[in-house]
Amino acid sequence: MTRPGGRSARVRDAVHDAVVELLAIGEINAAIPKIAERAGVNPTSIYRRWGSREQLLLDAAVTRLRATSPIPDTGSLRGDLLGWVEGIERSMCDPRGQILLRALVATLGPDRQPVEYLKARGEDLQATLDKAAARGEEVPTVEELLDFVLAPLYLRVLFKRPVEPGTGARLVERLLTALPADPAPNAGRGG
Amino acid sequence: MTRPGGRSARVRDAVHDAVVELLAIGEINAAIPKIAERAGVNPTSIYRRWGSREQLLLDAAVTRLRATSPIPDTGSLRGDLLGWVEGIERSMCDPRGQILLRALVATLGPDRQPVEYLKARGEDLQATLDKAAARGEEVPTVEELLDFVLAPLYLRVLFKRPVEPGTGARLVERLLTALPADPAPNAGRGG
Repeated sequence: MTRPGGRSARVRDAVHDAVVELLAIGEINAAIPKIAERAGVNPTSIYRRWGSREQLLLDAAVTRLRATSPIPDTGSLRGDLLGWVEGIERSMCDPRGQILLRALVATLGPDRQPVEYLKARGEDLQATLDKAAARGEEVPTVEELLDFVLAPLYLRVLFKRPVEPGTGARLVERLLTALPADPAPNAGRGG
Repeated sequence: MTRPGGRSARVRDAVHDAVVELLAIGEINAAIPKIAERAGVNPTSIYRRWGSREQLLLDAAVTRLRATSPIPDTGSLRGDLLGWVEGIERSMCDPRGQILLRALVATLGPDRQPVEYLKARGEDLQATLDKAAARGEEVPTVEELLDFVLAPLYLRVLFKRPVEPGTGARLVERLLTALPADPAPNAGRGG
């Protein structure tokens, strides 16, 4: 999780910026030479580091989306999750956040690798849940957070329904309130 | 909701088939003349009926996705919803269903009209809920069905997480079981 500094980080940031800027002006199929030109780097650097346009786009989207909605450490699970969804809502109100999410989904064609994005976010969330459980708090599962908080927010964005302020907080409260009453804690784990 | 018969319906079906087949072989940006050629119709018919490639793609996706997961009328809300999610799961296990959903999302760029798909499905669901309420059943809202059943299923597909058999049924049961205990029935309606 350490951020490599120096030239390598500058190249990555410049290339990510170029991808986001090209997406923002509708260039969703921009080829690597065009991205390289905008970033002011050599196309070879991009091919060497990311291998393909798709891998670059995935990396840019995952890096940016994670960065825009970090999970804070507030000392309570409720506070952590409310901070997290606030970041998601803010990011999704920004047209660039929406474009990145859409580009991420569009890039995952049938022959592509499964995306690492939800896996990475799942690990971030698991760490938050582990801390809360260690404090003795009642915690949901990562699966429940993805299903009942992230999915409803992302569906709104992807299908262009409005995200009303407070939607994320309402979803978090609903999940936390329902916690002790989960009707089927061991269902669906078969196989 | 009546299905126009005759030549008009045949053209529509042939054009929708051509779109789905082209998407299936990776031609996600096929232009109208190419679609027309594959469908065996005149490009002019497509321009006149749909106006643009995007509108055609939206219409094909909405028509097909609705058709593959109809909401049955079983006499109980639980039965209706379980039938509905079974259709969604079946459709999402078919690569063509996944491709259509992804194409639908990808087509909704920042400058596009909001999609009518969720609106159309919302109306179908509302009719089902109205019938159940008239029978005296406890019913969720359409919003809850979209948030807590459809969104988790679609997120799995769009991010290429596996849809385990029974996932939809588990989501329906969870929502129905939680019904009387909704912690905040009037929250988030402000503004």
